Amino acid sequence: LRGAYNLIANLPEELRRKGVITYSSGNHAQGVAYSARALGVKAIIVMPGDAPRVKIEATRALGAEIVLVGPAGSERQAKAEELSARHGYAIVPPFDHEAIIAGAGTTGLEIMEDLPQVELVLVPVGGGGLLSGVAAAIKQSKPNIKVVGVEPELANDAQRSFRGRELATFPAEATARTIADGLRTQSVGSLNFGHLLAFVDDIITVSEDEILQAIREIALRGRLVAEPSGAVTTAAFLFHREDLPRARQTVAVVSGGNIEPVLLEKCLVGS
Amino acid sequence: LRGAYNLIANLPEELRRKGVITYSSGNHAQGVAYSARALGVKAIIVMPGDAPRVKIEATRALGAEIVLVGPAGSERQAKAEELSARHGYAIVPPFDHEAIIAGAGTTGLEIMEDLPQVELVLVPVGGGGLLSGVAAAIKQSKPNIKVVGVEPELANDAQRSFRGRELATFPAEATARTIADGLRTQSVGSLNFGHLLAFVDDIITVSEDEILQAIREIALRGRLVAEPSGAVTTAAFLFHREDLPRARQTVAVVSGGNIEPVLLEKCLVGS
Repeated sequence: LRGAYNLIANLPEELRRKGVITYSSGNHAQGVAYSARALGVKAIIVMPGDAPRVKIEATRALGAEIVLVGPAGSERQAKAEELSARHGYAIVPPFDHEAIIAGAGTTGLEIMEDLPQVELVLVPVGGGGLLSGVAAAIKQSKPNIKVVGVEPELANDAQRSFRGRELATFPAEATARTIADGLRTQSVGSLNFGHLLAFVDDIITVSEDEILQAIREIALRGRLVAEPSGAVTTAAFLFHREDLPRARQTVAVVSGGNIEPVLLEKCLVGS
Repeated sequence: LRGAYNLIANLPEELRRKGVITYSSGNHAQGVAYSARALGVKAIIVMPGDAPRVKIEATRALGAEIVLVGPAGSERQAKAEELSARHGYAIVPPFDHEAIIAGAGTTGLEIMEDLPQVELVLVPVGGGGLLSGVAAAIKQSKPNIKVVGVEPELANDAQRSFRGRELATFPAEATARTIADGLRTQSVGSLNFGHLLAFVDDIITVSEDEILQAIREIALRGRLVAEPSGAVTTAAFLFHREDLPRARQTVAVVSGGNIEPVLLEKCLVGS
């Protein structure tokens, strides 16, 4: 929401009048749909047909027009660019844009305000919008706070890019294996990659089973409903403490609560 | 938590040294256990043996000593008084005490701070501690804001007391019928009753099925895990709008997230 709202709110009036378009596996789509409606702008969302039904319906319920395509990120982007060229819609990219990163960064500002003694912040990483923004906000204010990205082992392109210091791109079939549908991006954005190298301390990974266990813990002990993409940071805290910098106070950013009811049920039965 | 913490923090040092004891179906128990541990005070909790296992275990995990008795509130209270007399433990009653009401009232202050334009506040009512405090805080600050209590139809002693302007007491077998185990109190406290008459606009009821549906809505749309006692206010908003004062902005206080995983699963499958 924060990134999309920031971008749309700052569009010139003549662009806003034509409408906005985006390509997204779901949460960014809802952020764009919500922000566009709040700002009185028409929104078109290109989504993969295999996105959770709950995300597609929630986006439609926010008043956006939905266009469904195949699972590859590239396919979504191509479709959005085609429609943008034809109708003059302004593209709201999901992560690779300064306004998106700046909007997401307000999460970092809020964490420092709410918990000034925080020593470590864990952020999910898919395309890297949220992680870029949070890390930039925190490191430029309080460089001693550690910021670590977390992604699924089955879609660890960001870790590969970060550790190899070269942008890695995975095939869609590879990243599609993780249950964390919001983190199936095939690579981080290039602007995001620059932010990661400049501001992030590390990127670690969690297993699929750890993600499901974290959803259960977040529900029963944290009393929050998280989707798999949102639960990766708690999974890292619960199961990979030895991979993380030592900290007395840690914040896990839980971003994404759009989970299919049957999956939430499965997690509750779980372990 | 707020009421218990306020009471224990204000006990004279010589009482604190001996420890505190309470009788509760669960949430107050955890509030006392948590607050006592935070303040370095020993805590003994008398609980009904039929309380959800999740509540008993959570209370024990907070370091409290648990004593189990039968389902009647009177039985719990008698046991606590006996142990208090024998060992000198200070009693932390669940609702019928000024310090409990004052602590709970901070919820009302917080609502007015976070949402100054609020016009209606819905609060669950069992013994009446939370409702007394919230209503007193709100009505003495902004008397135009409406405050309405919500309880299960199957345990509507507070509504009966409020509307009849005479304190009603129900048998334990009657109130035990509701799934909202935190609201099975047989009557509101006498101090609480005075607050209800002075500060509350109305008390309405919801059905068992409405409570279960509200749990589902709170999980999937609000992304919060609520127990039945906590979900009654959302149930009132969703299904009894015509019984409530008109309002542009309504706050439903969702107090209690200690739900058995199997019940949460059942609600998710639900409708």
